[in-house]
Amino acid sequence: MSKQILVNAFNMNCIGHQSSGLWRHPDDRSREYTSLKHWLDLARTMERGLLDGVFLADVAGVYDVYAGSPDAAIRSAAQFPANDPFCLVTGMAAVTQHLGFGITGSIPYEPPYAFARRISTLDHLTNGRVAWNIVTGYLDSAARGIGRAKQIAHDTRYDIAADYMAVMYKLWEGSWEDDAVIEDRRRGIMTDPTKVHRITHQGPYFQLDAIHLCEPSIQRTPVLFQAGTSPKGQQFAAAHAECVFIAAPDVERAAGVVASLRRQTVAAGRTAADVKIFQLACMIVDDTDAAANAKMRDLQRYGLSEGALALMSGWSGADLSKLDIDARAENVTSEAIQSALKGLGARSVREWVDFLVLGGASPLFVGSPSTIVDQMQRWVIDADIDGFNVAYTLLPASVEEFVDRIVPELQNRGIYKTAYSEGSLRRKVFGRGDRLVAPHPAAAYRMSL
Amino acid sequence: MSKQILVNAFNMNCIGHQSSGLWRHPDDRSREYTSLKHWLDLARTMERGLLDGVFLADVAGVYDVYAGSPDAAIRSAAQFPANDPFCLVTGMAAVTQHLGFGITGSIPYEPPYAFARRISTLDHLTNGRVAWNIVTGYLDSAARGIGRAKQIAHDTRYDIAADYMAVMYKLWEGSWEDDAVIEDRRRGIMTDPTKVHRITHQGPYFQLDAIHLCEPSIQRTPVLFQAGTSPKGQQFAAAHAECVFIAAPDVERAAGVVASLRRQTVAAGRTAADVKIFQLACMIVDDTDAAANAKMRDLQRYGLSEGALALMSGWSGADLSKLDIDARAENVTSEAIQSALKGLGARSVREWVDFLVLGGASPLFVGSPSTIVDQMQRWVIDADIDGFNVAYTLLPASVEEFVDRIVPELQNRGIYKTAYSEGSLRRKVFGRGDRLVAPHPAAAYRMSL
Repeated sequence: MSKQILVNAFNMNCIGHQSSGLWRHPDDRSREYTSLKHWLDLARTMERGLLDGVFLADVAGVYDVYAGSPDAAIRSAAQFPANDPFCLVTGMAAVTQHLGFGITGSIPYEPPYAFARRISTLDHLTNGRVAWNIVTGYLDSAARGIGRAKQIAHDTRYDIAADYMAVMYKLWEGSWEDDAVIEDRRRGIMTDPTKVHRITHQGPYFQLDAIHLCEPSIQRTPVLFQAGTSPKGQQFAAAHAECVFIAAPDVERAAGVVASLRRQTVAAGRTAADVKIFQLACMIVDDTDAAANAKMRDLQRYGLSEGALALMSGWSGADLSKLDIDARAENVTSEAIQSALKGLGARSVREWVDFLVLGGASPLFVGSPSTIVDQMQRWVIDADIDGFNVAYTLLPASVEEFVDRIVPELQNRGIYKTAYSEGSLRRKVFGRGDRLVAPHPAAAYRMSL
Repeated sequence: MSKQILVNAFNMNCIGHQSSGLWRHPDDRSREYTSLKHWLDLARTMERGLLDGVFLADVAGVYDVYAGSPDAAIRSAAQFPANDPFCLVTGMAAVTQHLGFGITGSIPYEPPYAFARRISTLDHLTNGRVAWNIVTGYLDSAARGIGRAKQIAHDTRYDIAADYMAVMYKLWEGSWEDDAVIEDRRRGIMTDPTKVHRITHQGPYFQLDAIHLCEPSIQRTPVLFQAGTSPKGQQFAAAHAECVFIAAPDVERAAGVVASLRRQTVAAGRTAADVKIFQLACMIVDDTDAAANAKMRDLQRYGLSEGALALMSGWSGADLSKLDIDARAENVTSEAIQSALKGLGARSVREWVDFLVLGGASPLFVGSPSTIVDQMQRWVIDADIDGFNVAYTLLPASVEEFVDRIVPELQNRGIYKTAYSEGSLRRKVFGRGDRLVAPHPAAAYRMSL
């Protein structure tokens, strides 16, 4: 059997997510993000298409690097407003059986004891379908939301994250032994107290002395997602992540990142296949390549450049409000931007922005189902990735088109499942057990019996 | 029309909740609290009975005052394990249209910026059905979960809570003007930035400089629940609460608490009817009073005294492990406990514990539907309460019996709705608008236009 391509829907509890201004398109309903029905319908569609999961991004702040102001993001609805992703999970779980939930939780904003409980609760209620996308925070505006003047320095954030992970592993893996719950009605013992352990942690950033409040869930530690691509971020991913989300602009650069990640994973004592790598992609499909290209041009008409640049300014940390939108590629002075333009084959800033409004800084796969699946296969083979986080242009249309047009083509080629396998998300994605095992560091925190 | 009695189901994301050891009863399925289906079925039953809401209690720690150890609570499953209540909401909302959700959120454990967002998100996704039960924290074990050695002193906790409320009101009421979202497709403006305001707060306990991440939800500020009965707690309730949850042992003491609360509410500039008061109650119903009494005795056989006393020790702060279970009432040395015994008419400690295992420190209404509704009416009239938080002995049996046997009797007497009214929870409960109005302090934080 050929390698099966993994697919998550890339989404966020907001309007438009990666595709700035597309809420102006008559077919877009992402504005209905405040309606539970909107999410239930999406979940049903995703499960109909046998998607592995929905990846729920999150940003706990507003994009205000662009022109030093949040106004562009507010006007264009560039990931703003941004509602809580965790609140969506049990609603979507109520109408699905298999769909996974990759939920972004930002370490600076989530006190560890309560966060561990929330994840365990969701792992219980979803029957082990939860993944946590570990974020260390990047917007200063988010830091101000918790009373800090700025974000903590990048590298320090990973030290904090390492300390946080130790607390999480202790709570999830070490506080309850597997057979602690005995439900002995006659003796009146639900849980054997000798098998429930107080966790003490005196780390550099977190201190705690408490019993985990939740009995063991199916996965215990949720499937761990991570998206850092800086050297420190890659090192963290190599040590902890089971799934890594990358957003390379082209297949060559993806291959480089993937090779580096797999090398570091092996150096960390794990095997290269212990990490599944998902590449960001945005797909525009139609009957023919020509029709898909026409659809792309139609979609681009609705984009809002200030929204796209507000997002890009937040991601890069560089204020792009001064950028001359009419400049040709060769006249752009910033090396980083020139490289970004080149990666997407944009001949001018305007052409680049026209790409950005469709899926953000995402490679665009445009064409017939056959053309798109060709591209997907090329990325999987040439970059050694395991699957895709698929951004939308229009909601729910993009998800429906993926499910109805691209999934069948993937299935015809034998590179996509035709039914879900049973069990937890970890079991489905890795074809192994429900729980993390050595040499993953989580396993070291398990109580030996 | 007679005064309509309000009813919430009193519940918690745990086993047995208030009724220690009843998980041993063959008809109890509260052990299934980790299953989403369990909660969906409960929500459907509650809505079938036109309940105003489900009140989701929470305790972010373990009861370890009893014998200075968590072992009794762990063994008996006394509110332990205790999963996150927020995770239940959208699942239950997905299968209901009207049921309200009173969710306990503990100020020391919920960073304000993220908490405000979570509540707003839920208010959106439930179409304005959210209430927040404001808790200031009481278990030292919970404090240790966030790295503190002990709980903060009682009175200081209310100062912290007042500061926290100011942050909440600013975010919920002051950050977005009503007409900020304009969704102007032609000009590409989703939200008018001049109508979205940065909140700055430099309080004694909380500091923040941020825009609320959520557009206005139906209720903005959720319906505010509170349960403090200390002098400081009553003062806080009089200023902020819209609904107050009391747990008086008898109708006379309830009347005293209610009169005091209403008096203070008026002193705070509000009207007495601005606060709806819910009394804790536990009901055991059967065809006849005799059959209900027999049912009660059957249920009591399954109770676990160490669980009941572990809970009571946590609530009171007094270690009750030394209490002689066989002592007669007149021989009990502690005045507080003697008073508790008297309140419930218990002639011995054992009799008291036999009451405690059914609904915790709750008045027990035992009898035919007619007898129980007589008692409910007596409490409503004599104590001037507005309704009940109804604890269960068996889940889902207690809820089903309430819905199928007590609700019809209430309806026959014209003291309970026969259909839900439309609109938000606040509109349903108060028969007024969706939002808080002056003189409630929240209204003062609203942007004047």
